[in-house]
Amino acid sequence: MGGRAFTLAELAQATGAAARGDGQTLIRRCATLASAGRGDIAFLANPRYRAALADCRASAVIIAPDLAAGTNLPALVHANPYACFARVATLLDPTPAPLPGIHPTATVAADVQLGEGVSIGPQVVVAAGAVIGPHSVLHAHATVCHGVRIGARAILHPQSVIGSDGFGIAREDGRWIKIPQTGSVVLGDDVEVGAGTTIDRGALDDTVIGDGVKFDNQIQVGHNVRIGAHTALAGCVGIAGSAVIGAHCEIGGGAIILGHLEICDRVRVSAGTLVTKSIRTPGVYSGAYPFGPHREWLKGAAQVRHLDELVERIAALELRLKELEE
Amino acid sequence: MGGRAFTLAELAQATGAAARGDGQTLIRRCATLASAGRGDIAFLANPRYRAALADCRASAVIIAPDLAAGTNLPALVHANPYACFARVATLLDPTPAPLPGIHPTATVAADVQLGEGVSIGPQVVVAAGAVIGPHSVLHAHATVCHGVRIGARAILHPQSVIGSDGFGIAREDGRWIKIPQTGSVVLGDDVEVGAGTTIDRGALDDTVIGDGVKFDNQIQVGHNVRIGAHTALAGCVGIAGSAVIGAHCEIGGGAIILGHLEICDRVRVSAGTLVTKSIRTPGVYSGAYPFGPHREWLKGAAQVRHLDELVERIAALELRLKELEE
Amino acid sequence: MGGRAFTLAELAQATGAAARGDGQTLIRRCATLASAGRGDIAFLANPRYRAALADCRASAVIIAPDLAAGTNLPALVHANPYACFARVATLLDPTPAPLPGIHPTATVAADVQLGEGVSIGPQVVVAAGAVIGPHSVLHAHATVCHGVRIGARAILHPQSVIGSDGFGIAREDGRWIKIPQTGSVVLGDDVEVGAGTTIDRGALDDTVIGDGVKFDNQIQVGHNVRIGAHTALAGCVGIAGSAVIGAHCEIGGGAIILGHLEICDRVRVSAGTLVTKSIRTPGVYSGAYPFGPHREWLKGAAQVRHLDELVERIAALELRLKELEE
Repeated sequence: MGGRAFTLAELAQATGAAARGDGQTLIRRCATLASAGRGDIAFLANPRYRAALADCRASAVIIAPDLAAGTNLPALVHANPYACFARVATLLDPTPAPLPGIHPTATVAADVQLGEGVSIGPQVVVAAGAVIGPHSVLHAHATVCHGVRIGARAILHPQSVIGSDGFGIAREDGRWIKIPQTGSVVLGDDVEVGAGTTIDRGALDDTVIGDGVKFDNQIQVGHNVRIGAHTALAGCVGIAGSAVIGAHCEIGGGAIILGHLEICDRVRVSAGTLVTKSIRTPGVYSGAYPFGPHREWLKGAAQVRHLDELVERIAALELRLKELEE
Repeated sequence: MGGRAFTLAELAQATGAAARGDGQTLIRRCATLASAGRGDIAFLANPRYRAALADCRASAVIIAPDLAAGTNLPALVHANPYACFARVATLLDPTPAPLPGIHPTATVAADVQLGEGVSIGPQVVVAAGAVIGPHSVLHAHATVCHGVRIGARAILHPQSVIGSDGFGIAREDGRWIKIPQTGSVVLGDDVEVGAGTTIDRGALDDTVIGDGVKFDNQIQVGHNVRIGAHTALAGCVGIAGSAVIGAHCEIGGGAIILGHLEICDRVRVSAGTLVTKSIRTPGVYSGAYPFGPHREWLKGAAQVRHLDELVERIAALELRLKELEE
Repeated sequence: MGGRAFTLAELAQATGAAARGDGQTLIRRCATLASAGRGDIAFLANPRYRAALADCRASAVIIAPDLAAGTNLPALVHANPYACFARVATLLDPTPAPLPGIHPTATVAADVQLGEGVSIGPQVVVAAGAVIGPHSVLHAHATVCHGVRIGARAILHPQSVIGSDGFGIAREDGRWIKIPQTGSVVLGDDVEVGAGTTIDRGALDDTVIGDGVKFDNQIQVGHNVRIGAHTALAGCVGIAGSAVIGAHCEIGGGAIILGHLEICDRVRVSAGTLVTKSIRTPGVYSGAYPFGPHREWLKGAAQVRHLDELVERIAALELRLKELEE
């Protein structure tokens, strides 16, 4: 715990919310509706959790106008309570800010260009020719390979890898020849890269990640992938080489996107979906087999294997019925 | 190879097995039924491999009572031969035990609390405020982030990450705002974390892993996940934020568990299953599309897309037939 | 950019291609058809991109005989243009070769055996008893565990892990006992291991990877897996313990291969497939649920759950129709 306390009025001013109740209420910490107590501010973004509001012991809550009548607690009323909470949580964040500078155990090549206020954590490696924009933070064990260009305010979480070789191999006489990967990776501004996420360098051209793209953990991005601005990707996503993903997309956890295809702006891909073709219309796309008790799944899976026999049986029935009807 | 030799009688006493045959048989090493020779002890846990018993050249075998008649070799007879093997293998393990203490290349913050006998391997990073219980082992390149609390006898395999930021982002005007992740991670006792596995810290409350939970490699655990005691998770599993998994569960490789759902105790999830809803009854759950030769799959997949047309054709047939029958 | 320039004639001689046009054309760099300019050589391997040939401003192209008539540019004509490109790109590669020797920040145990010309990058860890063949390259943050044996010309990309413990646990009284993993990992010659890929050591015998096997990023290989020579695996593949994969296979991204099964030589597994049984016939195997717009998927998925009811309805129709026909 730490950080300074804010009054509700100060938080309202900082976030553009309307303060309701005593503006001098002191807030020290964010907490959940269930665990909040004196000095805490909680938030209700999902109407599903409305019931928890009645018993909430927070000093204040962040809430949407249409739900605000559900409590008498002092409140920050905001049309986008989750974003308001994000701003409040940032103000109250007790985590010590990463120290600017290079940790003595990091390995940073002599010619790396570091912007103002960059923080390079313990055991980080930044190879020759890399460029890192101002106020970027590289956490422990991050690897930035040669020539990678990273924008401002990037966050690389532990064990992320930017600029590893793409998977380029050519077959000759039953063996694989490695194709040198001579492109690089360019990350825009405000990109966040989760723990264990790997972004490969391009084969010839660069792999390009737009401004504000957010990667969760353990995502694999193949060579020459391009991702548009403000797209968010959940954990364990795999994107094969040369796929192009638009801006403002949301890719669900564990989805796999094949190579050399295009996904337009504002597409949402559900978790566990294998995207095998380009998507040219915004919307939500899904493709996972429905799960269930193992025995039911066994029966269903057995029938799926014989679907075309079923189709033939239906066609035969239609024919015989037609003959009978005539 | 190394380690000291044990007599069959000593091993029987240490494991609670019944020794059959010459109790003075010297055992130096564990080996498979196929590769075992003089001085080796092999085990038969799976009746499928019974045939290999006839040709086995081990000095002794570990075997269940109902299979013991299948060989004349000296034996440790135990109702749970696999667990007995685990105990014997631990006694005979030739691997040098990890040295207690901090490897000189590790980076451990000044205020970290280390229990007795903790071993911190090369290039490990342990950040400020972390607590690590006695006899825990952190292998090369493990990352423990600030404030994480790890119980006794934990094993963190290479490149595991405990306490990276959860994936918390709020959308505002088409951009993402980062939500500070101010919770932590609490691991119980006897937790094993595989290579490349990442466990995110909570957003507000903690991510909590129960005693005896075993993680294979490359598993992703989102923020605020809770996993009950003695649950085991195979490789490449992804668990989204705020999922609650019970005790004594087994999660198969590559399964994806969506966020904000609950899985009760004693559930087994088959490999490759996408769990999209809470599971409230113990049992086995599955949900992967059956694989097959590509052409058969193509035909089946095409029909799956048109299943509701098939349903309509069947309904039409039923109607027409009813009219004919009347 | 760097590296020396080659004439088209020199490149033809080095690759076995036929030079067409001015053999003195100077080539400095590889580039894509779209971005190539003076001094660049581009390639056309996929007839789909033939249209780009007309506007190509490269100094030369690499092309197959049957497509060579599509351009008047100087050319290297080769039956396998992609392999020819791989060779040309290697000759022209401007990336500085990894320096032989051990980076001062690496941790290499005293008894490790290093072949001639081995390059060990920053923050790499190589544990006791490991053997690394000549001209192998270990990139930043790679981990090689004790006793692992790596052949010649291996490339370990950042954050790869070779020889972490396999996931061996035995259940006893509802708890898990760890089984020591006393086997090792043996990599053949010319193996490439992608960023974040983990290859576990064997439980008793070794995990064995054949010559020329190529792993993309974030692949998980369980204990005692055996992979035949010249097999290639795309990103995010998971292979459970004791699976045996043949030679010259291609495993698509995100595929999961269950344990204790066998895949014969020359099998291709499509992306996202869960392989649940042995494959004994070469060919292509698939098994992903077809994706589509969320609403269509919802309808299809609902029907899949009730497939056996559909089958019963069809059987009932067949019976009633037979009665009518009689």
